[in-house]
Amino acid sequence: MSFNTFGKLFRFTTWGESHGPAIGCIVDGCPPNIPIKEADIQIEMNKRRPGQSKFTTQRKEDDKVNILSGVFEGKTTGAPISMIIYNKDMRSRDYETIKNKFRPGHADYTYFKKYGIRDYRGGGRQSARETAARVAAGAVAKKILENKLGKKYKVVGAVTQLGILGCDKNKWNDKFILKNSLFCPDKSVLKLWEKYLLSIRKSGSSCGAIIEVRARGIPIGLGAPIYSKLDMDLAAAMMSINAVKGVNIGSGMNSSTLTGEENSDEIFQKKGKIKFKSNNAGGILGGISTGQEIVVSFAVKPTSSILTSRKTIDRFGKNTSISVKGRHDPCVGIRAVPIGEAMMHCVILDHYMMNNGQCKI
Amino acid sequence: MSFNTFGKLFRFTTWGESHGPAIGCIVDGCPPNIPIKEADIQIEMNKRRPGQSKFTTQRKEDDKVNILSGVFEGKTTGAPISMIIYNKDMRSRDYETIKNKFRPGHADYTYFKKYGIRDYRGGGRQSARETAARVAAGAVAKKILENKLGKKYKVVGAVTQLGILGCDKNKWNDKFILKNSLFCPDKSVLKLWEKYLLSIRKSGSSCGAIIEVRARGIPIGLGAPIYSKLDMDLAAAMMSINAVKGVNIGSGMNSSTLTGEENSDEIFQKKGKIKFKSNNAGGILGGISTGQEIVVSFAVKPTSSILTSRKTIDRFGKNTSISVKGRHDPCVGIRAVPIGEAMMHCVILDHYMMNNGQCKI
Amino acid sequence: MSFNTFGKLFRFTTWGESHGPAIGCIVDGCPPNIPIKEADIQIEMNKRRPGQSKFTTQRKEDDKVNILSGVFEGKTTGAPISMIIYNKDMRSRDYETIKNKFRPGHADYTYFKKYGIRDYRGGGRQSARETAARVAAGAVAKKILENKLGKKYKVVGAVTQLGILGCDKNKWNDKFILKNSLFCPDKSVLKLWEKYLLSIRKSGSSCGAIIEVRARGIPIGLGAPIYSKLDMDLAAAMMSINAVKGVNIGSGMNSSTLTGEENSDEIFQKKGKIKFKSNNAGGILGGISTGQEIVVSFAVKPTSSILTSRKTIDRFGKNTSISVKGRHDPCVGIRAVPIGEAMMHCVILDHYMMNNGQCKI
Amino acid sequence: MSFNTFGKLFRFTTWGESHGPAIGCIVDGCPPNIPIKEADIQIEMNKRRPGQSKFTTQRKEDDKVNILSGVFEGKTTGAPISMIIYNKDMRSRDYETIKNKFRPGHADYTYFKKYGIRDYRGGGRQSARETAARVAAGAVAKKILENKLGKKYKVVGAVTQLGILGCDKNKWNDKFILKNSLFCPDKSVLKLWEKYLLSIRKSGSSCGAIIEVRARGIPIGLGAPIYSKLDMDLAAAMMSINAVKGVNIGSGMNSSTLTGEENSDEIFQKKGKIKFKSNNAGGILGGISTGQEIVVSFAVKPTSSILTSRKTIDRFGKNTSISVKGRHDPCVGIRAVPIGEAMMHCVILDHYMMNNGQCKI
Repeated sequence: MSFNTFGKLFRFTTWGESHGPAIGCIVDGCPPNIPIKEADIQIEMNKRRPGQSKFTTQRKEDDKVNILSGVFEGKTTGAPISMIIYNKDMRSRDYETIKNKFRPGHADYTYFKKYGIRDYRGGGRQSARETAARVAAGAVAKKILENKLGKKYKVVGAVTQLGILGCDKNKWNDKFILKNSLFCPDKSVLKLWEKYLLSIRKSGSSCGAIIEVRARGIPIGLGAPIYSKLDMDLAAAMMSINAVKGVNIGSGMNSSTLTGEENSDEIFQKKGKIKFKSNNAGGILGGISTGQEIVVSFAVKPTSSILTSRKTIDRFGKNTSISVKGRHDPCVGIRAVPIGEAMMHCVILDHYMMNNGQCKI
Repeated sequence: MSFNTFGKLFRFTTWGESHGPAIGCIVDGCPPNIPIKEADIQIEMNKRRPGQSKFTTQRKEDDKVNILSGVFEGKTTGAPISMIIYNKDMRSRDYETIKNKFRPGHADYTYFKKYGIRDYRGGGRQSARETAARVAAGAVAKKILENKLGKKYKVVGAVTQLGILGCDKNKWNDKFILKNSLFCPDKSVLKLWEKYLLSIRKSGSSCGAIIEVRARGIPIGLGAPIYSKLDMDLAAAMMSINAVKGVNIGSGMNSSTLTGEENSDEIFQKKGKIKFKSNNAGGILGGISTGQEIVVSFAVKPTSSILTSRKTIDRFGKNTSISVKGRHDPCVGIRAVPIGEAMMHCVILDHYMMNNGQCKI
Repeated sequence: MSFNTFGKLFRFTTWGESHGPAIGCIVDGCPPNIPIKEADIQIEMNKRRPGQSKFTTQRKEDDKVNILSGVFEGKTTGAPISMIIYNKDMRSRDYETIKNKFRPGHADYTYFKKYGIRDYRGGGRQSARETAARVAAGAVAKKILENKLGKKYKVVGAVTQLGILGCDKNKWNDKFILKNSLFCPDKSVLKLWEKYLLSIRKSGSSCGAIIEVRARGIPIGLGAPIYSKLDMDLAAAMMSINAVKGVNIGSGMNSSTLTGEENSDEIFQKKGKIKFKSNNAGGILGGISTGQEIVVSFAVKPTSSILTSRKTIDRFGKNTSISVKGRHDPCVGIRAVPIGEAMMHCVILDHYMMNNGQCKI
Repeated sequence: MSFNTFGKLFRFTTWGESHGPAIGCIVDGCPPNIPIKEADIQIEMNKRRPGQSKFTTQRKEDDKVNILSGVFEGKTTGAPISMIIYNKDMRSRDYETIKNKFRPGHADYTYFKKYGIRDYRGGGRQSARETAARVAAGAVAKKILENKLGKKYKVVGAVTQLGILGCDKNKWNDKFILKNSLFCPDKSVLKLWEKYLLSIRKSGSSCGAIIEVRARGIPIGLGAPIYSKLDMDLAAAMMSINAVKGVNIGSGMNSSTLTGEENSDEIFQKKGKIKFKSNNAGGILGGISTGQEIVVSFAVKPTSSILTSRKTIDRFGKNTSISVKGRHDPCVGIRAVPIGEAMMHCVILDHYMMNNGQCKI
């Protein structure tokens, strides 16, 4: 887990800039003999791909993944899988006018101060375009886990709060999520959400969101105490996504307001099956999976590129102001759903492999 | 960052069980020639030490730290610093009655399922007693950072929410925090908090808390993009603390409800100094420090050991119930304050060293 | 340092198979603002490139490197540098006849047993073609070190033994090495070596070699005690090269026959400069550089692909025999010279950065 | 694998100085439920312990190991195992006279230059006393491997060359090795070796040695391609031992003089069992175990502390000379045998666990 690599036994390393020729990743530590093809990965890529609805940026990228290594005759070989995605729709000119200005809320200022360099083309390496590479890595992890754990293994993410609008999580519907462009899990609020987001878009503003990712069919015992806690690695995974500012496991921040009685997920057995009365723990106790659904949610801050003029400085330290026109998502949180799912797959697989390595030998 | 080790260039590894002979840690990667003595570390240990007020567990531990290596003639040598803390007040008999039962909310069940072993003595390795070792490691990191960054470097933590009771963060007072047993930053609410916590204690119940840790005097440019983001490592650090279920950076989960206009921390210069109008980002943009105050908060769930009887199963899979008597904190969140501070020191130092290694060479 | 990644702070990850579409690497942890261009890398690539003389395989590869990320306007940005080298001359048909047989001395058998898969196309991932990617990574490290340490920094490798033929190391001539296809450092033996190697080639046989790599202009203090010793990391680096079976630092294996008097490199100062009377230590004491020349040598076993028929088994466990025709180097050791240099650059830079991170902060 | 930690999934971290209060290690990643007791570890410790014969240093250390954590009711729990060994016989006064001088061949000079500190007490952290901690870690690894692989798993080390004297490896006798103080495997040369070493001891000189470590009962498929090659990790492991300057796998450096015909270990099957005609590869092909005996040898340079006066400088840069009296081994290589065995156990177990994690899931 260092700079551009994520994971321990199952690891991926990403590379590439928003407006360079391509982006990509290397997935290392893959078990051999897992059937995989580019189309499997493309399905996940398409969920994150921009330009698919009026609610996301109009940048046109087909985000087509090419596998360059690690797969032979349709199966993983155990060698590293290198995947590349060529950038298509790079309009660097969009950035000419802001070349010397630091966009507030973006990493322009900190990158410049750290590296002494300004890659002004859409944020360069700081761009959320990097997340396309993780979705590819996550698709590989997903295939492996489905192969090992069977159909019961399932990860589903959704937007559970769009700006100031919430939803009823009791109405969560897996299938409905995939049928709407906002990854909304609750049919009853979708219309309202759409109207709200369009109004934000029209006004050149933006809003934040909360994404919730649920993982089912998880074996008991994944994770490790102390500094490889499953929830610690999930928190790191989600916080590594651009614009994420908060992460919850199960009841999360709300657990602070509960009493011990409310919070304890009572345990019982019924016909030999061990069950829990509730899931405040989000499926993780002491850093180790309980076998319940794993529930992680995270907050994505509003898109920092907005039409309204904001005060800022330029690279020479002078006061100025900026209004960002380009092509931007009114809510970057929406496209974070498949990214959160991808990170969940990767963390689960990594811990599945480590658990086998240490405890099942 | 693996199992029992935290950090990359500055790393510490902890060991020990709640009711074993001792606990301890090894701190590796220390710069040489930093003056350090056991008393420096003891100051931090004493903040976490149990049995100091009626608000915490009555387990008596003096938590005295012995340095066994890595310090010669009062200075670090660059060799690993091994520290040991002997356990004193181990009443394993407290645990005899619950030997075969899994305490809900604790890691008893998951540890047993993962390792096939039940160390029933106060949770064994899963006990929060492990955190004493991190406080020792954090004290070393603090000394080094004070030595390198000077007096402007300061980390202060406080309880900002106690169960259902909040406080006014505008009234945050560094000095007041150290003068009350609840690490409350706002004098106006202390009395109320004390009454509330005593009533919870008397009823054998427990409550959660939110801890906020602030770091000042941080150089611009610490952190790294993508998978060594400063906020990612801080999220991992805080989530690795026992009973933590949520982590926020700056506005955190609340950033989801903000608009782009509200959220963007506008930048300006005044007399050559670069400043920000607000700090929703919590001092971190794109994973890299802005030079502002770093603000991290995290939620600690209520103590799972409560007097009220809870349904559970025993290790043979039979339904039963449990009521935990022993000696327990009514709110484990309180003693998490110095732990959060320790983790902040360690993450900051690790990134300070990595930044020097990569960008200042 | 895991599976396909080498290094700690300066790290590279390689990918690709001998007969896949391409190979490549990602270099992570690069300091920013270092001028670098594809031509700088190509110079090193050309030293390793096959098909350049009658002494190496006739496979034609131009080994042209493309930089896909991490360099902007001619300078490193601090972001990962992704480099790709397309494979050109892939005659998989050469391998049809041996598709089901394990070549003795190659990794065919062990890969098949480990992964349950047989990528028969020229060895797949086990092919020495992977080393082209490290040479690219090493070229980046070289540029950085030259930028930081100046002209005094120099790494030179040579073949010091070709099969049964040695050379006089006192006649080591840097410039002569680059003027002959055998990287021979001693002009007086070259003719003999050439005749010897041609006779081996003609008979379809092969021979081993010893490569020596020397690094000059190294600061004192690089390395770390115990498990990041400079010589430990160099040994790992060289042993990771295909077909390497032994590694020496300084006097190496021969140090076993020395007395304490012979072995100790006496120290003295002359006009304020600290010097050593000898360099049995190879420039490293206690895992840390002394400031002397660093001297590493390693043995490369003879090419395992030979014309003479060898007994082996096929993938179904049946006894059979094999005679490998294809295009092969009569001595793979020769092309290991630039690879050894590349690994030296990478290890030195990694330790240079770690030393700055820990000791120069 | 960083500074004071060795290993990936099975990892140990050592700490302590030659003349501090104690040394020790933390072993992390242990599988649970392995029976282990202090006596198991003590057996290995006793093989390395000084003061046992006239051929080693007369420093008296009982090297008694205390287990402080990670073992409960006689079995590993999966939690980190902390072990401590108190130093007993610390005569720092031996070092008073050389306090300000750098001993040639030792790391005094490089440590001082790197860290700016001189821990003159017997070398401080650079002392070979650190290796006692690895022997303890290796004993844990041995217990686990014996538990998992059964009795066929065996690691045996011996001194195969003592200074200028060799032995006949065909006469290698496991049992004889343990019956003589020189770990000599060939009965026919022992007397000669003893006379030779005594003469070296009397003259206050020292000699080098070659140690060979053999591992049997190794499953096929351990190791990994490229940067986690089994031989690469073994080379790193052995080169991390104090005073080691060269490492061979199988034929090692000698493989350079072989032809392809001589070097290829032909494969055949007999009654369904796969066998090799020879073992030049030392049991490793392409970085992966073949199932043959793994054979690693390494050279230990002569003890640098000798009676003969050597030229050196003091810490103020002045020319001086030094003659080291203290208590020293005439051949440190002898006591390296159990250390080499310990490192072999640790590397094998680490790869066994990683292979299970990646390929057996």
